[in-house]
Amino acid sequence: MSTTSDLRVGVVGAGMMGTDHVSRLNHRTVGAVVSAIIEPDPRRAAAAAKAAPGARSFARVEDALDAGAVDAVLIAAPGQLHEQILLPVLDAGLPVLCEKPLTPDPESSWRILEAEQKQPRPLIQVGFMRRFDAQYRELRELIISGAAGQLLMLRCVHRNPEVPDSYTQKMLITDSAVHELDIVPWLADAAISRLEVRHARRNPRSPAHLDEPILVLAELDNGVLADIEMNVSIQFGYQVGTEAVFEAGVARIGQPAGLQLWHDGRFQVADHQGFGARFKQAFDTEVQAWADAARQGGIGGPSAWDGYLAAVACAAGVQALDTPGQVTVELPAKPAFYAGPGTSAGRES
Amino acid sequence: MSTTSDLRVGVVGAGMMGTDHVSRLNHRTVGAVVSAIIEPDPRRAAAAAKAAPGARSFARVEDALDAGAVDAVLIAAPGQLHEQILLPVLDAGLPVLCEKPLTPDPESSWRILEAEQKQPRPLIQVGFMRRFDAQYRELRELIISGAAGQLLMLRCVHRNPEVPDSYTQKMLITDSAVHELDIVPWLADAAISRLEVRHARRNPRSPAHLDEPILVLAELDNGVLADIEMNVSIQFGYQVGTEAVFEAGVARIGQPAGLQLWHDGRFQVADHQGFGARFKQAFDTEVQAWADAARQGGIGGPSAWDGYLAAVACAAGVQALDTPGQVTVELPAKPAFYAGPGTSAGRES
Amino acid sequence: MSTTSDLRVGVVGAGMMGTDHVSRLNHRTVGAVVSAIIEPDPRRAAAAAKAAPGARSFARVEDALDAGAVDAVLIAAPGQLHEQILLPVLDAGLPVLCEKPLTPDPESSWRILEAEQKQPRPLIQVGFMRRFDAQYRELRELIISGAAGQLLMLRCVHRNPEVPDSYTQKMLITDSAVHELDIVPWLADAAISRLEVRHARRNPRSPAHLDEPILVLAELDNGVLADIEMNVSIQFGYQVGTEAVFEAGVARIGQPAGLQLWHDGRFQVADHQGFGARFKQAFDTEVQAWADAARQGGIGGPSAWDGYLAAVACAAGVQALDTPGQVTVELPAKPAFYAGPGTSAGRES
Amino acid sequence: MSTTSDLRVGVVGAGMMGTDHVSRLNHRTVGAVVSAIIEPDPRRAAAAAKAAPGARSFARVEDALDAGAVDAVLIAAPGQLHEQILLPVLDAGLPVLCEKPLTPDPESSWRILEAEQKQPRPLIQVGFMRRFDAQYRELRELIISGAAGQLLMLRCVHRNPEVPDSYTQKMLITDSAVHELDIVPWLADAAISRLEVRHARRNPRSPAHLDEPILVLAELDNGVLADIEMNVSIQFGYQVGTEAVFEAGVARIGQPAGLQLWHDGRFQVADHQGFGARFKQAFDTEVQAWADAARQGGIGGPSAWDGYLAAVACAAGVQALDTPGQVTVELPAKPAFYAGPGTSAGRES
Repeated sequence: MSTTSDLRVGVVGAGMMGTDHVSRLNHRTVGAVVSAIIEPDPRRAAAAAKAAPGARSFARVEDALDAGAVDAVLIAAPGQLHEQILLPVLDAGLPVLCEKPLTPDPESSWRILEAEQKQPRPLIQVGFMRRFDAQYRELRELIISGAAGQLLMLRCVHRNPEVPDSYTQKMLITDSAVHELDIVPWLADAAISRLEVRHARRNPRSPAHLDEPILVLAELDNGVLADIEMNVSIQFGYQVGTEAVFEAGVARIGQPAGLQLWHDGRFQVADHQGFGARFKQAFDTEVQAWADAARQGGIGGPSAWDGYLAAVACAAGVQALDTPGQVTVELPAKPAFYAGPGTSAGRES
Repeated sequence: MSTTSDLRVGVVGAGMMGTDHVSRLNHRTVGAVVSAIIEPDPRRAAAAAKAAPGARSFARVEDALDAGAVDAVLIAAPGQLHEQILLPVLDAGLPVLCEKPLTPDPESSWRILEAEQKQPRPLIQVGFMRRFDAQYRELRELIISGAAGQLLMLRCVHRNPEVPDSYTQKMLITDSAVHELDIVPWLADAAISRLEVRHARRNPRSPAHLDEPILVLAELDNGVLADIEMNVSIQFGYQVGTEAVFEAGVARIGQPAGLQLWHDGRFQVADHQGFGARFKQAFDTEVQAWADAARQGGIGGPSAWDGYLAAVACAAGVQALDTPGQVTVELPAKPAFYAGPGTSAGRES
Repeated sequence: MSTTSDLRVGVVGAGMMGTDHVSRLNHRTVGAVVSAIIEPDPRRAAAAAKAAPGARSFARVEDALDAGAVDAVLIAAPGQLHEQILLPVLDAGLPVLCEKPLTPDPESSWRILEAEQKQPRPLIQVGFMRRFDAQYRELRELIISGAAGQLLMLRCVHRNPEVPDSYTQKMLITDSAVHELDIVPWLADAAISRLEVRHARRNPRSPAHLDEPILVLAELDNGVLADIEMNVSIQFGYQVGTEAVFEAGVARIGQPAGLQLWHDGRFQVADHQGFGARFKQAFDTEVQAWADAARQGGIGGPSAWDGYLAAVACAAGVQALDTPGQVTVELPAKPAFYAGPGTSAGRES
Repeated sequence: MSTTSDLRVGVVGAGMMGTDHVSRLNHRTVGAVVSAIIEPDPRRAAAAAKAAPGARSFARVEDALDAGAVDAVLIAAPGQLHEQILLPVLDAGLPVLCEKPLTPDPESSWRILEAEQKQPRPLIQVGFMRRFDAQYRELRELIISGAAGQLLMLRCVHRNPEVPDSYTQKMLITDSAVHELDIVPWLADAAISRLEVRHARRNPRSPAHLDEPILVLAELDNGVLADIEMNVSIQFGYQVGTEAVFEAGVARIGQPAGLQLWHDGRFQVADHQGFGARFKQAFDTEVQAWADAARQGGIGGPSAWDGYLAAVACAAGVQALDTPGQVTVELPAKPAFYAGPGTSAGRES
């Protein structure tokens, strides 16, 4: 690849996720290079700088923009900081990959949409990496093909080994179910119209302030019903999967695969131990697709509109956590700006 | 086996199920013999008689009892006839295996309980054959053992290829979900306290008067939540299974097994094509256990009390079909009569 | 079942296998009852008698025959005694189920064939129970159907947890591989023409006098090649299976099935722990089929001719244990006596 | 990645494999760029040039070397040309990735070893890409770890949908089994000492001049026995897998994985359709590892010594095709040159 066109990426946030993206960009992404680390914490910044030899360090994204140090920005900072980071990047007209959530609430996400629409075309790709996972893609193709007839139900599981102490009940929706609230409409090609939350018997091993597992019931405007098991502190493994019920078949993704070992009277298959292993291919493909699109000045995945939809669904989901029965999800019409080519809405290949 | 003690069984009802039981009793059950066919329809009676050479024919169960022709009775007649058949058999003090449902509604089931309690001990076993299926038993043992911690959720599927024209929306609950409404409490060792029904996108291949699949949400009084997919006209196969979510593991039963064929670019496992194949072992074991117990004058499986509980749950489920939100299930206290040894309540081995 | 026609069975040998058959006949076989225990050891005889309340005890099979106590005989005594037990039973013209081997060597097996041919029809069924296993039957039907084209290869495993101290290297063939040397020709509908034995790296956990695993290569007269892994002291489980390679597909039987447990980071399926669990259904079906046929005076499974073929193959296999290269298997023509209806040769349903 | 250090690769041979490598180097390999296409056929050269915009075209490798156009060479030309291409590259002291085989026979491979040993360190990596497949690596780690005890046997399958008309019986060994003859010793950490070939029933769908499937039996000098099914024109799919038999367990790799579809009465898992899909990850990882090492002037995978070993094993295998019994494999001592760090011999991470 001609080296003169390498995309110079500024990575905002040098926590675990940001550091992971630095390594991905420099070692597993063709045509991109980390040219700047933007991180206010000096210790974190110094640690990240070691992994990105040629990169400059900045405390604020505005400084990196002013210095002309970046062609594009990848945001891996905490969600509540996203708005203040996104706005100057949009002003500068640079492509950006923003880790989910776009912002923590529908109102701030709407403000981002307004700012982005002042640009000639969408610049923000949101980090819903599941859309790049080979199995989710294969399932979506099966749905679109109609080979098994119409899709009727989605039965999802989101099982995660453990969460940090700072994880709250509300984050069951905004931090974890958000992935399902993006992927379910994407798979079913329809919008969420109603949400309900049901509580199962509480897991005694969950942190004291968490009441889980819960079952999130999402009804889509084409009638498809999804029941989503959220189970984030199971300790014994990691499993994200979906069973899709069609009129003429049932498909299943996310099942354990790999080396099979028959040992000690049991036939075993190694399972995934965390989202990093389960979604390594999805993250790599996502960032490569983004880098390829960003070099052309656009996006190559879910748009800010998708981020906004998820923010609205999450707000309804949080309300449903404490509301008996169903909570209605109200959505504005989709701006034409997000309908054209170059956005991820609709069916990207 | 000493032939003098063969249990002489009168089979009531010579339809498909009754004929199947005649064959089972005569050819696959040790220590039992069909001594009477009780069937008002002469044509059916004659057909069944061919399969049971030594059996006498009667139009009414009372006639068979008066003739002293039977030691025990197996009822495979339509559910709305069960009450009038059960009462004289109870009066005669004979053991009986009654196909599900015990009766079609809680009131008539309660009358059966009252009649049975005039006898020295329970005489009625209800035909919930899943309790004899090796995999359901294995799952129950895993739950009781605590090896995977407390049970938190049950995620069930009931997928059936097709239903007759006479099958109604209400029968989604009373004829099909009734199996789940018995097995879920049995597995979880708790009673159903609330039921909710949610509709998925309607299967366009279902009969015109059926709106399915539906999702039945059953909450138990120990907090366990079950979500049950009812999907009875899928045409492409048969699958009954359960995923049990524990605090320290997930177990799954009802998965396809058997010969694996790699052919035409696909690795395939034959699946079950109907309940007869899926539950053949369960039916055989059920009838053998009943015959063994009946020769001792008792029952060897789910009791009339279990049949009553299912009738109450079904009535609530039918109400939930047309009711938004949750329907509460009200249960009387369990009579001591059903707590003693010799009934199926609690944990039979 | 009319009780007057119950088959009165004399069981010869009250060791583990004989005791198991007594229980099977009395509790899981319709239309048969153990009427005699034939066992010279008084302690064993007494123990077995407890499990068969109505049965009489005899020290010798001739005594049971003279007393008119049996309609048929099941032989579960050690193989070297089979000839002297079979001969008087044949003289009496009674049907017999003889556990494998028919006899320990081709010469004595041939003498049995000669004695049997003096009877009007075959009376001896040999206990190759795999032929009654549902999966082996399904595989055979697939082969016969031609749905996957011609059969080309069979790749077999015989893995067993442990063997008694008395088990010798030669018994790898005569006691264990004998099952494969019967089932491979039965599946492929052809005779074994050549045998070769290859040694793998010795399992350090095997008993000191055993050199295993070995690979037995059996070439059939229709060109099909079978490579059979014999591995009888693996300690960690039990697995018997076959992969059949066709011109248009590959089929596999004997894979683990049952409850799936996801636990401790592993997705597990319980495997079989011994031949009793793996082949319970096969043993039950075998004995029922035999009892049904014996009540008509005939056999319902593999014949003495099949037993003879296995004896010849085993003799060649024992020779191959110490012979580099291939050992040719020489077979006489099949007597017409074994070709007619009523024998197991050819394709029983 | 700093663009100044991109490895300039000359790809020799612009057939299907070469074209695939051009795409891989330019689009999926970090730090490498195709700088030259070396291909005598002008039409092929022109087609390949389109896929590598910045690359120059040369008819001979010497021309590319003289022009200083390359830092390293990837050889994807036919095997019989490898020697004449490798020699000038070695003279120039450049790192090279040579598709298998190293050369078509042991004698020419030995000449390559002699030429390479005149260099300060090994420069040739041979394209045995299976060593980079995640499942083969996982299996090797399990073997090395000893967690399942000593390795005793390897049971391998190599099933391939079809071969070109030019494929000969001998190529069953030299073109296909060569992968197994490399990977079996690598897994078992031992050298092949004896080979035997057995023929199965001929597949009637194979090309007229092919007699297959065959079973290749490879005995290693540590006693491990491998039986390898070679089956290269099965038409119905592609499957490469290994079952490893340990003293305390059995492991299996290469099983079908991915989306599971329950449809039309069958539970299905998509299988691989060719080596490109099955080994895509392995090829990508192989070339990335090579590019990373080549930038340091060395190799990052199997060495020319490994290529020589495979050539010797193939020669013995070809002899065994027509020889009854076992053929002994004679190997010279391994030169110290290939034992040091920087070669792939032994256990690369």
